[in-house]
Amino acid sequence: MQIKQILAEAAVGSEITVKGWVRTKRVQPNVIFININDGSVIHNIQAVAEPGIINEDTLKLITTGSCIAVTGTLIESKGSGQRVEIEVKSVSVYGTADPDKYPLQPKKHSLEFLREIAHLRPRTNTFSAILRIRHTLAYAIHKYFNDNGFFYLHTPIITGSDAEGAGEMFRVSTLDPKNPPLNEDGTINYKEDFFGKETNLTVSGQLEGELGAMALSKIYTFGPTFRAENSNTARHLAEFWMIEPEVAFYELEDNMALAEDFTKYVIRYALENCADDLAFLENRLKDEEKSKKADERSELDLIQKLKFVVDNEYVKLTYTEAIQILLSSKRHKEGKFQYPVEWGIDLQSEHERYLVEKHFKKPVILTNYPKDIKAFYMKLDDDGKTVRAMDVLFPGIGEIIGGSQREDSYEKLLQRSKDVGIHEETIWWYLETRQFGSAPHSGFGIGFERLVMFVTGMGNIRDVIPFPRTPKSAEF
Amino acid sequence: MQIKQILAEAAVGSEITVKGWVRTKRVQPNVIFININDGSVIHNIQAVAEPGIINEDTLKLITTGSCIAVTGTLIESKGSGQRVEIEVKSVSVYGTADPDKYPLQPKKHSLEFLREIAHLRPRTNTFSAILRIRHTLAYAIHKYFNDNGFFYLHTPIITGSDAEGAGEMFRVSTLDPKNPPLNEDGTINYKEDFFGKETNLTVSGQLEGELGAMALSKIYTFGPTFRAENSNTARHLAEFWMIEPEVAFYELEDNMALAEDFTKYVIRYALENCADDLAFLENRLKDEEKSKKADERSELDLIQKLKFVVDNEYVKLTYTEAIQILLSSKRHKEGKFQYPVEWGIDLQSEHERYLVEKHFKKPVILTNYPKDIKAFYMKLDDDGKTVRAMDVLFPGIGEIIGGSQREDSYEKLLQRSKDVGIHEETIWWYLETRQFGSAPHSGFGIGFERLVMFVTGMGNIRDVIPFPRTPKSAEF
Repeated sequence: MQIKQILAEAAVGSEITVKGWVRTKRVQPNVIFININDGSVIHNIQAVAEPGIINEDTLKLITTGSCIAVTGTLIESKGSGQRVEIEVKSVSVYGTADPDKYPLQPKKHSLEFLREIAHLRPRTNTFSAILRIRHTLAYAIHKYFNDNGFFYLHTPIITGSDAEGAGEMFRVSTLDPKNPPLNEDGTINYKEDFFGKETNLTVSGQLEGELGAMALSKIYTFGPTFRAENSNTARHLAEFWMIEPEVAFYELEDNMALAEDFTKYVIRYALENCADDLAFLENRLKDEEKSKKADERSELDLIQKLKFVVDNEYVKLTYTEAIQILLSSKRHKEGKFQYPVEWGIDLQSEHERYLVEKHFKKPVILTNYPKDIKAFYMKLDDDGKTVRAMDVLFPGIGEIIGGSQREDSYEKLLQRSKDVGIHEETIWWYLETRQFGSAPHSGFGIGFERLVMFVTGMGNIRDVIPFPRTPKSAEF
Repeated sequence: MQIKQILAEAAVGSEITVKGWVRTKRVQPNVIFININDGSVIHNIQAVAEPGIINEDTLKLITTGSCIAVTGTLIESKGSGQRVEIEVKSVSVYGTADPDKYPLQPKKHSLEFLREIAHLRPRTNTFSAILRIRHTLAYAIHKYFNDNGFFYLHTPIITGSDAEGAGEMFRVSTLDPKNPPLNEDGTINYKEDFFGKETNLTVSGQLEGELGAMALSKIYTFGPTFRAENSNTARHLAEFWMIEPEVAFYELEDNMALAEDFTKYVIRYALENCADDLAFLENRLKDEEKSKKADERSELDLIQKLKFVVDNEYVKLTYTEAIQILLSSKRHKEGKFQYPVEWGIDLQSEHERYLVEKHFKKPVILTNYPKDIKAFYMKLDDDGKTVRAMDVLFPGIGEIIGGSQREDSYEKLLQRSKDVGIHEETIWWYLETRQFGSAPHSGFGIGFERLVMFVTGMGNIRDVIPFPRTPKSAEF
């Protein structure tokens, strides 16, 4: 039985065996306390042994990080903070952890240090809580879409096309890296590569997702995506997971409603299913913020912030309206924005956060962005200047969702793809969906790690994925 | 409302709008029939229009593959094979499909032809059924693990290590492919590559999965894996999805029980949730088998075969016992196996299928394989000759699961990794889990596409993934 079940439901007086890793051991003259965790829940179970029950040789092997099995009687707890604890009858040691070498001793470790031992950090309270919440969010995502008639579509990871027409990509190849075969003009002969053409890791499953939606009506993707950007920031990963729903017959308004309903559902699901882990992370965040200046601290505690998103309607306005608000703001008039504000700019994080955190104090959906700052596949508005884009902005995190109604006119899509320099022959299959039974349709992408950051309150994206991939780092 | 809901539950007499793609149109003197499908379900809904309701210009645009919206009254069906049909009041056309160009006309298309138009094949009955079943199986997998206390762990796609110590890998790089930076000795200077080292696409998430299990106890992965094998067969993909549970404190017997319970659960889930799609694919398979000789046809129909797996206990025996059975078989004595049988061989498909389909007529779990034909991380048996491996063999498909109890002794694991030429410094983090709190643990891998093949009865793996990646092919 796992510790989660034992703490919640096992009967006092029953004989049980617990298997897990030792967090702490305290030897007192009349009693020995061993705290054990198995990762099923944030709480430890306390094992209490009278002297003599555990022989001296075994007791020496029981140190922080060692793995043991304890058999005994479940009794009401006298002070461990839990309902029950174990009165030890016998202990066996599966694996030791030399205290001189094991890096996770019971003291505070910095997040930076823990990143260097990503193979062990899931054994800490913070990271096990994050990973359990990450799991729960992933499950909620699948459940939401399944319950709402969406089909999970596995779009390809290795691709010959660049969906966004932008972004640095990782090349995938089996050619001899030192002596690749060349064409007569000296360029590389990718015809001899594994796939007979130049291939890269996908930056988005959207284009293929649209193919699915134009047959199954409602699909979503949930898979890894890649950016070879040399960005060493707390918000960027070279490998991250993305969720991309795509729905036939949805227009921009339906798309906004889906984005709001979806995000509220998965956050509510985490609130309902991860209460203990969220409480732990909320306290962690409070501790962390103590070292910050008062005006840099969050106004809301973690769980308050999540409830606030779930309980409030998202504010919806156009990009043009948002620019007006920014231009009218005291902050703009006092020249306190670092980047200038004018119609046509790509909003910076400071602008987005002003709108969300200062002006509206709610999640915001901005729509109808200038076409020149958005992707070629977004549906052109009647004015010819803006497109039916939408970005969802969250407090603390900025843009968490980017989406749009898609251009469903073959002629307009072809023109836009030419304008941005995408060759017709690389996306002939995408263009064909507009020639054969085209329909209005919409979708969006949400970065999974951004969502996990928001829900866990973690400030660095490297701390919400088990094994982060960043420039100069692909360990484990 | 989607067609699935309309057919199942919408009230006769209600006013509804259906949006979808035209499968067929029949114009008779007194009535027009239009069959519409929206991908939510295998069945079409029939729209019935009196002459004059649809004007001539619109009627011409309504051809196979066009996308339309039909508004009308839901009436009891007089003969469409469904409960209800729509009496048309108005029709609008979203997108046309020129009959001279649209490739999916209402006639039989070969699977080979459909692979060339993978962007459109989800609009066929066969592929929409496969994709719905694929979704349902994926959902069942997440549900099974979630309900049983496993955490979904996202193991890295880009990796500096080769988990299996075998298999051709895809290189991931951002170096200039023509003029890569070189070291003084003429080798490529991967320190200048994006990750500061040579990186490849993962062949398995298992090693990282074990790190998760040694902290959270029960984890599973479900992600893409890659093999750069130049195999142009009906069973190989360069990019495929794999599920890998890994459990602390599980020994081989627990692992076998998990594999059996898990596969039965997800197949039962598909039987219960995909009855219509399975019935369609069963008929498809019967048609296909008509062209085969009697003795090459399946003994069981598709659904019978699935029920047979769900309802029977899997046979468990050792590799050594299996070799005895093969050596004692009439087929062996008559020299009818293509590959010779003796202890130590890697079983060939013909051997596996003989055991499953002829000898036991049940799914089979073989255990305790010779160590020399299995991976370095499998736990050595006491005899020093075999390892605690297990392969699950399914009828028609052969090996669907490979797994083992893992070597938890640091010394033995280090020795085995050296024996097979894996450098300690590339898996230091893996070895450390055996130094710090090691524990018995087990896990397995199941190829998702193999499972989808088994459940759908499809014979070529390229037909159970939306966009297959194979040698010389990465279109879409």
